Amino acid sequence: MWLRNCWYVIAWGHEVPAAESPQLFTRTVLGEPVLVYRTLGGDLVAMEDRCCHRHAPLSEGRREGDSVRCGYHGLKFEPSGRCSEIPGFDTVPVKACVRIYPVAQKNNWIFVWMGDPVQADVALLPDNFSCESPDWQHKPGYMHYDTPYLLICDNLLDFSHLSYVHEKSLGGTTRIAQAKPEITTVPGATAEWPQMGIRVSRRVADVPAPPFYQRFRQFDTNLDRWFDYEFLLPATLLMHSGGCPTGGQSDDPATSVRLHSCQTLTPETATSTHYFFQQSHPVNEGDNSVTESIYNSLIDAFNEDRDMITAQFRNIAFDPERPMMPLGMDAALTRFRRLLEGRITAERHAMNQPHPSLSTPVAS
Amino acid sequence: MWLRNCWYVIAWGHEVPAAESPQLFTRTVLGEPVLVYRTLGGDLVAMEDRCCHRHAPLSEGRREGDSVRCGYHGLKFEPSGRCSEIPGFDTVPVKACVRIYPVAQKNNWIFVWMGDPVQADVALLPDNFSCESPDWQHKPGYMHYDTPYLLICDNLLDFSHLSYVHEKSLGGTTRIAQAKPEITTVPGATAEWPQMGIRVSRRVADVPAPPFYQRFRQFDTNLDRWFDYEFLLPATLLMHSGGCPTGGQSDDPATSVRLHSCQTLTPETATSTHYFFQQSHPVNEGDNSVTESIYNSLIDAFNEDRDMITAQFRNIAFDPERPMMPLGMDAALTRFRRLLEGRITAERHAMNQPHPSLSTPVAS
Amino acid sequence: MWLRNCWYVIAWGHEVPAAESPQLFTRTVLGEPVLVYRTLGGDLVAMEDRCCHRHAPLSEGRREGDSVRCGYHGLKFEPSGRCSEIPGFDTVPVKACVRIYPVAQKNNWIFVWMGDPVQADVALLPDNFSCESPDWQHKPGYMHYDTPYLLICDNLLDFSHLSYVHEKSLGGTTRIAQAKPEITTVPGATAEWPQMGIRVSRRVADVPAPPFYQRFRQFDTNLDRWFDYEFLLPATLLMHSGGCPTGGQSDDPATSVRLHSCQTLTPETATSTHYFFQQSHPVNEGDNSVTESIYNSLIDAFNEDRDMITAQFRNIAFDPERPMMPLGMDAALTRFRRLLEGRITAERHAMNQPHPSLSTPVAS
Repeated sequence: MWLRNCWYVIAWGHEVPAAESPQLFTRTVLGEPVLVYRTLGGDLVAMEDRCCHRHAPLSEGRREGDSVRCGYHGLKFEPSGRCSEIPGFDTVPVKACVRIYPVAQKNNWIFVWMGDPVQADVALLPDNFSCESPDWQHKPGYMHYDTPYLLICDNLLDFSHLSYVHEKSLGGTTRIAQAKPEITTVPGATAEWPQMGIRVSRRVADVPAPPFYQRFRQFDTNLDRWFDYEFLLPATLLMHSGGCPTGGQSDDPATSVRLHSCQTLTPETATSTHYFFQQSHPVNEGDNSVTESIYNSLIDAFNEDRDMITAQFRNIAFDPERPMMPLGMDAALTRFRRLLEGRITAERHAMNQPHPSLSTPVAS
Repeated sequence: MWLRNCWYVIAWGHEVPAAESPQLFTRTVLGEPVLVYRTLGGDLVAMEDRCCHRHAPLSEGRREGDSVRCGYHGLKFEPSGRCSEIPGFDTVPVKACVRIYPVAQKNNWIFVWMGDPVQADVALLPDNFSCESPDWQHKPGYMHYDTPYLLICDNLLDFSHLSYVHEKSLGGTTRIAQAKPEITTVPGATAEWPQMGIRVSRRVADVPAPPFYQRFRQFDTNLDRWFDYEFLLPATLLMHSGGCPTGGQSDDPATSVRLHSCQTLTPETATSTHYFFQQSHPVNEGDNSVTESIYNSLIDAFNEDRDMITAQFRNIAFDPERPMMPLGMDAALTRFRRLLEGRITAERHAMNQPHPSLSTPVAS
Repeated sequence: MWLRNCWYVIAWGHEVPAAESPQLFTRTVLGEPVLVYRTLGGDLVAMEDRCCHRHAPLSEGRREGDSVRCGYHGLKFEPSGRCSEIPGFDTVPVKACVRIYPVAQKNNWIFVWMGDPVQADVALLPDNFSCESPDWQHKPGYMHYDTPYLLICDNLLDFSHLSYVHEKSLGGTTRIAQAKPEITTVPGATAEWPQMGIRVSRRVADVPAPPFYQRFRQFDTNLDRWFDYEFLLPATLLMHSGGCPTGGQSDDPATSVRLHSCQTLTPETATSTHYFFQQSHPVNEGDNSVTESIYNSLIDAFNEDRDMITAQFRNIAFDPERPMMPLGMDAALTRFRRLLEGRITAERHAMNQPHPSLSTPVAS
């Protein structure tokens, strides 16, 4: 049901403690508990958080050098996943190992690859540049949903909801819903991936500034606003947005607001989701109070989304078989879901062919 | 599993706000979320609380005149259920509509018809006269159960439980359990409905007054008590009860206590239930303190019932297939369950015949 | 799935009130609610806590002499399980009865027999002598788990976990995990039961005293420690353990610590468990503060176990079909599980043969 041969964000870089820390970081992705830690040499390790012996979480155990020892019966696992010690026994069965996931950190997001490790390809990492950049400034966010991740994808793929869900926060005008977005396809990063996602571009001319824009400067005219984003497989939004006085220059920092946002959804289970997000502003446009203000606006708005999507999911649960009604505004989400389903089908088809073993660890 | 072609109470009249209020009232009936509101012209509307587009609850949106606008993507629905606007689009698909339920208000109970709208018939509304009458006075009650509604029907169809569950509140004597009730059938209100329910009449002579009767007057003799009620499909109790000094006149307001009670159960889901109730006294027999006292006695007693039925349901859940043991005291509930099952079977049978479409809205 | 023809502990003796008390004691065993009470003559009664009529719990009712009256409709049940009164009716159907379980109290543990009552045999009761003995002293413990009982059996059958789960409490050294236990079989108590369980003996020479031993006396040398226990069907641990200065006399009260522990697990449901336990010291070795200290050490340690096993069960629930990896340290638990499965298979096989009825009550 999930795309597996792709990168999912499991944590912000700063959530995973340094090698010297006694804390162990664990998070569940696609229904699999995953332990993430840093070696003394600075590498990341993403290890199945489940001892092969009796399935106890390794995160309840402790670090020993670059290894992790299970806190139940003391089995010790190396960063390769190999069990190197079983207390009381001189030999260790070769089958005693835990799964290692390919892992990569890029611009302060830590990604894990949940499918065939041989296929893990850093060229497929999204360009989340503003998550860590000398030119951009933000406060990182995390939110947990008790809904399937696809309902949140739907939300992000149709910004007409800004006019209603966020009427008093991000949106501020019904003109956003009325504007037709331009929808195209993001070409693939590799030969294997002919398409990476959907590109959505929405322009809204001559509308009042949303409340949180006033933290940058006091606007006394209407604005032309833009929302240009890519929504990439499996579920990452990368967006340039902003506004400038009607008819003005969108690239003039003295008069415009320019933002870059990186947001990504990671399924925790079939009915729960991790949401990592930030919205950045150029470092020289606005100070820390602006950063804080943007963050608070996001939190308020994303709580509005979560309330709506949680209520929607409750309704769906009453009658899960009832079909939804596709409308014109669903063009982007429909295309994205079709793209995703195509990839999942292709992935399943490939799994039935001869293929490299899943058990080969891949160095991070 | 439920009877659908019948009226269920969804709310007290005063629970549904006036047309001018920004509040939207929603309650789930038979597993379906239903929005109820009043038009500016004073009509009631009962609308599926689920947008046809992405299934968001309309109750999270807002009123616009007599219409309701979805708070997710802004679809607007008329009291007929028709979608009259989709933001950003000039036309609306004819299939874009939400279900409208026949709705009626009678004596401060608001009823919805969950089956075929064409068959909705106000002649089938129960005579809950004391819920709104110049001659009767009460304080209305509502209680939520986490049990199937039929377990509560069972409870109301056998008052022998008063001697045990309500030993210290409504009951007060084992004589109630010992008295044999007379059980007959309530004839149908229409040709379609040959039987409307079960009539139960229980007389208990020469017993002490229950504690809450003393709020009307100080009784220094035993009483003759009576409980005469109809229990009507789908699940409504209408009861005359009271007491008078042993051998006295039951219709003498100077010496007797005379009450009328309307109670009704509405399935919320397969395992939860809405319970609406009141017990009225004649307006000229007792003041507001008596009204309050009766209400408090009901709440105390109905909490006793709920504790017992919730514990019973927990036991049933341990072993759902285990049969119960029918006893003589179950005569009324056995007859009622048979009547109900007969109606459900007839309804299902009729659904397999050519019949009027469910999609035709019926004006309330 | 459970062994039924065996004794399970349902309560500590002091948990079940005296005959004169209005309190009724109930606990669920193998998914069946069981009421336990004492007759005026001092006998124990274990009765299905579910009225045969409408399945209400009898524990919501009240004692009347040696009988129990249901609090819903007043049916009255004798200690034999027979219904002796139905209010309002002169006769009682012979089929109106509730199940009675064989029950026995031994050394302050109250046992119920959940299978064929005819086969109930007090010779199968375990020798939990230190639970009530003039020579031993303890404070009794009870803990509830939200996990299957077999995961706790596994824990108790492999003390190598002491080195890790209880590193800072009971264990204190990795030497426990490294010591190889001697594992044998406990011969049967009756011809029917050729094997009663597994005997595990573990010796650990020359290790530091665990912290709570210091409450008996200040040890300034290393100790030789021993753990000798039987783990008996269905799930009872009886253990002698202790320690003495390295190379010293294990039976010298002046220099050694000697403990006896009785612990037993009773499935409440498929995913929850009752845990009764105590660890005793000889009455003349240590005072009440030592008793309290041992109890507190157990509670601390058993909370460590429960945290670990609950986390393990959460992991198992993510992927229930995934096989565990048997290792050498699992020898005792593997043998025990095999023994248990053999008994369950034999029991099921016997149930398909002609056999005495389950409905015959057996006097306790």
